Amino acid sequence: MMTPVKVYGTTLSTAVSRVLACLIEKDVQFQLIPINMSKREHKSPDYLKIQPFGQVPAFQDEEVSVFESRAICRYICEKHAEKGNRGLYGTNPLAKASIDQWLEAEGQSFNPPSSALVFQLAFAPRMEIDQDEEVIKQNEEKLVKVLDVYEKRLGDSRFLAGDEFSLADLSHLPNAHYLVNATHMGDLITGRSNVGRWWSEISSQDSWKKVIEMQESGA
Amino acid sequence: MMTPVKVYGTTLSTAVSRVLACLIEKDVQFQLIPINMSKREHKSPDYLKIQPFGQVPAFQDEEVSVFESRAICRYICEKHAEKGNRGLYGTNPLAKASIDQWLEAEGQSFNPPSSALVFQLAFAPRMEIDQDEEVIKQNEEKLVKVLDVYEKRLGDSRFLAGDEFSLADLSHLPNAHYLVNATHMGDLITGRSNVGRWWSEISSQDSWKKVIEMQESGA
Repeated sequence: MMTPVKVYGTTLSTAVSRVLACLIEKDVQFQLIPINMSKREHKSPDYLKIQPFGQVPAFQDEEVSVFESRAICRYICEKHAEKGNRGLYGTNPLAKASIDQWLEAEGQSFNPPSSALVFQLAFAPRMEIDQDEEVIKQNEEKLVKVLDVYEKRLGDSRFLAGDEFSLADLSHLPNAHYLVNATHMGDLITGRSNVGRWWSEISSQDSWKKVIEMQESGA
Repeated sequence: MMTPVKVYGTTLSTAVSRVLACLIEKDVQFQLIPINMSKREHKSPDYLKIQPFGQVPAFQDEEVSVFESRAICRYICEKHAEKGNRGLYGTNPLAKASIDQWLEAEGQSFNPPSSALVFQLAFAPRMEIDQDEEVIKQNEEKLVKVLDVYEKRLGDSRFLAGDEFSLADLSHLPNAHYLVNATHMGDLITGRSNVGRWWSEISSQDSWKKVIEMQESGA
């Protein structure tokens, strides 16, 4: 039996959830190791050896360590090409290029405004941090433009990279989940006909439901 | 003879320069097709078909089109694994994972503050746009933290992903070049012992010198 890979962090983190959803899609056993950020465990010398930026998640596969959630997902898909959902990162260079471009769109265009909104609208109140109305306004405007492009794309294509659910779709789940379920701006996603249809489909993936179960159980 | 690939945009764009440096490293013939942004050619219906966000570069390889500079670079390296610099994107999953994590660090951590500074300090004055002192201050603070991590990493390793120049290093060239040569904050890079040594080495790559020649000739 293979040693489970280790993921450091908690399911509250969008980057950790992204990696867990990928591991479940690929049917790879893992162990989730909590990092107590209030005790600054993510800044300890041992942790910084595997995650030099002191962020979550960190990831270890026996002697290999990888950081950055999207790089971890790519590694998992490359290493376990034949396991679980085989098409998650494509099965040929062309499919992979299509997935990569939408995965980059998520990282470069969707993630910055959506994570800013999730922080301002969902986390800041819980952390008793004042919300910044200007930041909210600017990021809502940015996200609207991005989702207008998605609306068009998803009118032509069932999923972002093509006919199959892929890493590109999966990577959107954590921020979109909070936006829809923990802010008053979920309508940006659910109120668009094609984006709403896509969200309904990708958020029903068994892998994502399992991540949400873990999150709700406090993992 | 193979049809040259098409890159749409100009070398003034950091994202275009990233792709050109990669094509030159991989010894892939290309044609650079100017996009006149003042005439809004990047928002034309034909252009939006290949670059739905209306940004540069767009990229075409016969019938294949790819957008997002880092996704284009990955595609070029995957398709032309045996051409030019063979190790640019690694030759095994482990090397590739190391490159991917630092390429993501560039996209997620280095690019946002460095491109904000380049815009504020180098482009805003030329475009007669007022500089935003608060944005400059916040992004300088962010970049300092990122470069402190790089300084440590580059004390242990010749290049970011290991002993060889890779796509991870290459991807930093366009913003670092402007920061060093077109702003008063170049010292953030050249003033750090290991980062400065690394910068000196990566900016001397023949591929990058050719991109700069193209930039200086107005391409």
